[in-house]
Amino acid sequence: MVDKADKAVVLLSGGLDSATTLAIARNEGYQCFALSFDYGQRNRVELEAAGRVAKTGGAVEHRILNLPIGELGGSALTDDAIDLPKASEFEDSGIPVTYVPARNTVFLSMALAMAEIVGARNIFIGVNAVDYSGYPDCRPEFITAFENLANLATREGVQGDGFRIRAPLIDMTKADIINTGVRLGVDYSLTISCYNPLTDGLACGVCDSCRLRADGFNMANVADPTVYRSVR
Amino acid sequence: MVDKADKAVVLLSGGLDSATTLAIARNEGYQCFALSFDYGQRNRVELEAAGRVAKTGGAVEHRILNLPIGELGGSALTDDAIDLPKASEFEDSGIPVTYVPARNTVFLSMALAMAEIVGARNIFIGVNAVDYSGYPDCRPEFITAFENLANLATREGVQGDGFRIRAPLIDMTKADIINTGVRLGVDYSLTISCYNPLTDGLACGVCDSCRLRADGFNMANVADPTVYRSVR
Repeated sequence: MVDKADKAVVLLSGGLDSATTLAIARNEGYQCFALSFDYGQRNRVELEAAGRVAKTGGAVEHRILNLPIGELGGSALTDDAIDLPKASEFEDSGIPVTYVPARNTVFLSMALAMAEIVGARNIFIGVNAVDYSGYPDCRPEFITAFENLANLATREGVQGDGFRIRAPLIDMTKADIINTGVRLGVDYSLTISCYNPLTDGLACGVCDSCRLRADGFNMANVADPTVYRSVR
Repeated sequence: MVDKADKAVVLLSGGLDSATTLAIARNEGYQCFALSFDYGQRNRVELEAAGRVAKTGGAVEHRILNLPIGELGGSALTDDAIDLPKASEFEDSGIPVTYVPARNTVFLSMALAMAEIVGARNIFIGVNAVDYSGYPDCRPEFITAFENLANLATREGVQGDGFRIRAPLIDMTKADIINTGVRLGVDYSLTISCYNPLTDGLACGVCDSCRLRADGFNMANVADPTVYRSVR
């Protein structure tokens, strides 16, 4: 366990993975500063979920920063001109169309700024290389490279003890993640993973993210608390 | 010279260094996409200067993105609670109080997102390790680490030819920079370097940045076009 005064910044999307990541950081004893972004994504419902998760998950603070990367376009998650794929239309190999250019680099950069300001030396991010191996910025080598950068880029890195970028889910299956979260008391009914929840806040049940989530509950032998709009 | 279709993103602050960097990128033949940030800094006058520099410097596009890193506080440049130092009060060693946590990391991350979207493979940044050696994120090892990160983090890095982070001023003195810019036709009267230009848009003449700029023109034997508010 860490010292009670030790602080961590936790990137929180409102999805299943980041809710579990927050629970892991809390379980290690960190004072957690949750950080979410409004980046013009279609799924603003996620931000409401992030607020619920931060509150029930014991974060001492939850900040939502406006990031205009949606204005730059270029991804199905932020650009209305690009249709969202159904699971069946997803590429089996390569990088999904839901890839957002440099997203995790931008998110970690902002988390790094916040960490240096609040005096946190650990930054938690819920990336996972198993189920989402198509995203280049969810791989262990990306995390290592960012940690290296963080410790060259900052006062804390140069003059202090430095930063650690923590990605505790990176090698877990979705079932491992869910089992870990259940053990730590995460209420997954508060989270949303859907790429396209519309205004009713319900998960679509057909997108790639819904499919991975449902499969994860299945494999974990945990009842799926998600209310899906479509019969799957 | 590069192919005429080759594109570059150029970080543009409205100061002397980034104006010179844009001129260097244009001189190499790139189609330049200039990128500036409104990050709650005191010197919004810089953004107006950036607009003038982008226009006269031949950028094909100039985008200003809102970045809320000022809200995070922690620097004399963004936080009204911290007094700006005069040159005489500056620390002779260590990191200046004008250091903004993770600033260049955040800026390069956004430039990387923009570069991948517009199809640019070169990102130019006007950092300089000679006159501002106190900033950790102005050092060559920071630039190298970011380039490494960029090529792990992105589709272009993994599947394409990758990105180059270009910092052409990094080893130049301020006089070298000014002489280079003059040779390339930069109109330095359009730029502003002052940390505290107030609403009249005039340089204060006493801050560290004003001092470095004036010394640079002196050393370069170039007439300083800056109108200073104070007699120096």
